[in-house]
Amino acid sequence: MKKIGTLVVIGVGLIGGSFALALKKQKAVARVIGVDRSRANLNAAKQLRIIDEVATDVAKAVANADLVFVAVPPLQIPKVLAQIAPHLGARTVVTDAGSTKQDVIAAARVALGAAFSRFVPAHPIAGTENSGAQAAFATLYQGRHLIVTPTEETDKRALRLVTSAWRMVGAKIINMRADEHDRVFALVSHLPHLISFALVGQIADEPDAKSLFAHSGGGFRDVSRIAASSPEMWRDVVLANRDAVLPALNNYLREAQTLRDLIAAGDSAQLETYFARARVARRRWLKDK
Amino acid sequence: MKKIGTLVVIGVGLIGGSFALALKKQKAVARVIGVDRSRANLNAAKQLRIIDEVATDVAKAVANADLVFVAVPPLQIPKVLAQIAPHLGARTVVTDAGSTKQDVIAAARVALGAAFSRFVPAHPIAGTENSGAQAAFATLYQGRHLIVTPTEETDKRALRLVTSAWRMVGAKIINMRADEHDRVFALVSHLPHLISFALVGQIADEPDAKSLFAHSGGGFRDVSRIAASSPEMWRDVVLANRDAVLPALNNYLREAQTLRDLIAAGDSAQLETYFARARVARRRWLKDK
Repeated sequence: MKKIGTLVVIGVGLIGGSFALALKKQKAVARVIGVDRSRANLNAAKQLRIIDEVATDVAKAVANADLVFVAVPPLQIPKVLAQIAPHLGARTVVTDAGSTKQDVIAAARVALGAAFSRFVPAHPIAGTENSGAQAAFATLYQGRHLIVTPTEETDKRALRLVTSAWRMVGAKIINMRADEHDRVFALVSHLPHLISFALVGQIADEPDAKSLFAHSGGGFRDVSRIAASSPEMWRDVVLANRDAVLPALNNYLREAQTLRDLIAAGDSAQLETYFARARVARRRWLKDK
Repeated sequence: MKKIGTLVVIGVGLIGGSFALALKKQKAVARVIGVDRSRANLNAAKQLRIIDEVATDVAKAVANADLVFVAVPPLQIPKVLAQIAPHLGARTVVTDAGSTKQDVIAAARVALGAAFSRFVPAHPIAGTENSGAQAAFATLYQGRHLIVTPTEETDKRALRLVTSAWRMVGAKIINMRADEHDRVFALVSHLPHLISFALVGQIADEPDAKSLFAHSGGGFRDVSRIAASSPEMWRDVVLANRDAVLPALNNYLREAQTLRDLIAAGDSAQLETYFARARVARRRWLKDK
């Protein structure tokens, strides 16, 4: 792959910061410029050598950029795209890391106009429950999936630039339709987060919450881990993907009600069948991974 | 602590086997005799040096035992207690590892008669999603809690014997009332298991389940881990603790419905508040641990 001259990262957090760190480690980028709403976070990113420069003039930075990586919380993506659109260089490629794709594509089409063909909608399947530049690390994307959902208009050169950069940081590229992407991740990512938030919310409501937390073990620790994720980001994700999230959550409620009814009825045989089927699915999945 | 002469472990799986292994490692037991419904599992336990002998005569084994550890799935405990009751030695102490305590105490009172004072109801807060003798390991209880829920009738010597054995294997002893225990663990253990089973059950129902599992990431992996737990054991746990599990699950359904309604209404502010509160609770809990 040709080395990227200038990379502009907008939103230098866990996702944007880790991408920059990993490209630098591979010597696949000459210069990284950071843009962020928080000056403190930018200073931290500079100190951690995630970025080489803090952007003093965003318009100038994106005009001279080979690649602009928009790694802000989902609902901020449209605003950021509208802000940079008038200043993009004629060959500047733009990509994102949004957890939903149909809404980002619709917003990009409006905001970017003629430059929309150089926008590559993407979603790296990686993360931790931590956020900010301090949370970034170079191996975050090693062996993880990068989903791209190009449209018919997406420029081949732009797509190649983005996918080869992600390959450089260790990701495996997967092509999907945007609507398929949104349904799949409502089920395997957005729903698990809601489930985890609801569990911790419920325990926190109990008068003896502190003692309850103190008695919890490994099962609770695992199921609740992602309830420590960024509230702003997850608010945006579930709202941006509302049309896929609501049916997934409604099905989940039905599933949990089925279990409730089996317990209330004391239906030992059906309960065991239900649990055994889940165990088999979980083990088969682990093996396939 | 005085060394235990003879320990009989009934149910040589993850819980019973790890207890025996850990006591042996501490040289705190002279002889371990294993009882199990599965001959293959007993042979594995012998080969792994978890037990010294396979019981050929259960009546004789418990007659000469200093301590009998009943580590079978919860709903089997009453039957096991009834079987050993007529044969227990005059000073033999019996303890269990059941995930629920009120039902076990009630069953023990009936089954053990005069020997009930030498029964110490207990619940080690440790486990993995694996089961059987092969899953046992000596450090399972290191730094974990052992909840004891003695009744007014419980003999002081019996209580001391059991708690000092658990201290030897690294556990921290916590005293609780049985009803308090059952409510607490319905919330922090039984409910998270149901939540995890329901999530995997739902994904397994989708026509493209295989592809969905393939796209899942770290969040799904964690929330779903305990759905691989023993179906038989969890069937027994949720049924044995039904009176505490049902209100916990009903509250959970209400909590998840609240989130659903906030998403449907597009209530961005309330969603963020909800998620932020869960994040704070989860992080505070992690810090306290």
